[in-house]
Amino acid sequence: MPVVMDADRIGRTLTRIAHEIIERNRTLDQLVLVGIQRRGVPLARRLAAAIHAINQHEVPTGALDITLYRDDLMRHTVGTQPVVGRTDIPFSIDDKRILLVDDVLYTGRTIRAALDALIEFGRPTSIQLVVLIDRGHRELPIKADYVGKNVPTSPSQSVQVRLAETDGRDEVEIQE
Amino acid sequence: MPVVMDADRIGRTLTRIAHEIIERNRTLDQLVLVGIQRRGVPLARRLAAAIHAINQHEVPTGALDITLYRDDLMRHTVGTQPVVGRTDIPFSIDDKRILLVDDVLYTGRTIRAALDALIEFGRPTSIQLVVLIDRGHRELPIKADYVGKNVPTSPSQSVQVRLAETDGRDEVEIQE
Repeated sequence: MPVVMDADRIGRTLTRIAHEIIERNRTLDQLVLVGIQRRGVPLARRLAAAIHAINQHEVPTGALDITLYRDDLMRHTVGTQPVVGRTDIPFSIDDKRILLVDDVLYTGRTIRAALDALIEFGRPTSIQLVVLIDRGHRELPIKADYVGKNVPTSPSQSVQVRLAETDGRDEVEIQE
Repeated sequence: MPVVMDADRIGRTLTRIAHEIIERNRTLDQLVLVGIQRRGVPLARRLAAAIHAINQHEVPTGALDITLYRDDLMRHTVGTQPVVGRTDIPFSIDDKRILLVDDVLYTGRTIRAALDALIEFGRPTSIQLVVLIDRGHRELPIKADYVGKNVPTSPSQSVQVRLAETDGRDEVEIQE
């Protein structure tokens, strides 16, 4: 079970992404962070803290819960129906540039559903995607703007992200 | 008004993309092409012809009409409402791997709307994106799988794709 990122590496990676976000967004004024439940939420909070540590700017941070529910479990399809619940975005996203944060980017289905949910929820100017791990095997033309680490995987493997807030420790492990 | 692609270049590029499609899709059996109106449709038909010329495989080809309609024209937002009309997909897209074809990739809004329309329309296994021109300035985390040519532009410029079927000649021009 290879560990592909340990706590140090995760910390350094999030700091690097915070610098990239600052560099690639001329002004931080309209930026907001939205983490996808479950582990995207602590990642979004850590990015907000890292951005604040660098330049004292507070980026509002919210949470979006996307549960993919297949209307036909036997069928492999991109047309999964998102169920949106426990969403906690306590600010308007109108005219905001959203940084959507998730732990692992895989087929792209969750992200497509999240884009729909955000656009249902308000009128953002743009949506950028931040992921800790890109494991490949996309089934939709979705791409992350900020990637912590590209981890080539086979479809039979799984990528387990553990974070102190949700799992007691920071670690990314590939499981066979 | 610089011409960035002439007829020869467009022809060679579509042949190259046809080869890439064959190379990257182990089997062509479940593949279908769907062009976005207006100029994605002749591009999809030409790709089907190019694939047939290479290996005698017939890829079913359909057309999707996405008109973006802003509920508030004064506001710059990714939450445009797609209006789907004149769609002509005379085959089931269930369990199919769709190659979605458009002439120019820009903000990503049209593509997001097209993904929604396709997923509304059936249950595809996957959706890949083919574009003749990627002009940059994305506002959504959308990426093309096959790109004819990357053309850096400023937001004030426009990219005009002309095709024999719709415009009497093949040419891609940047307009100030």
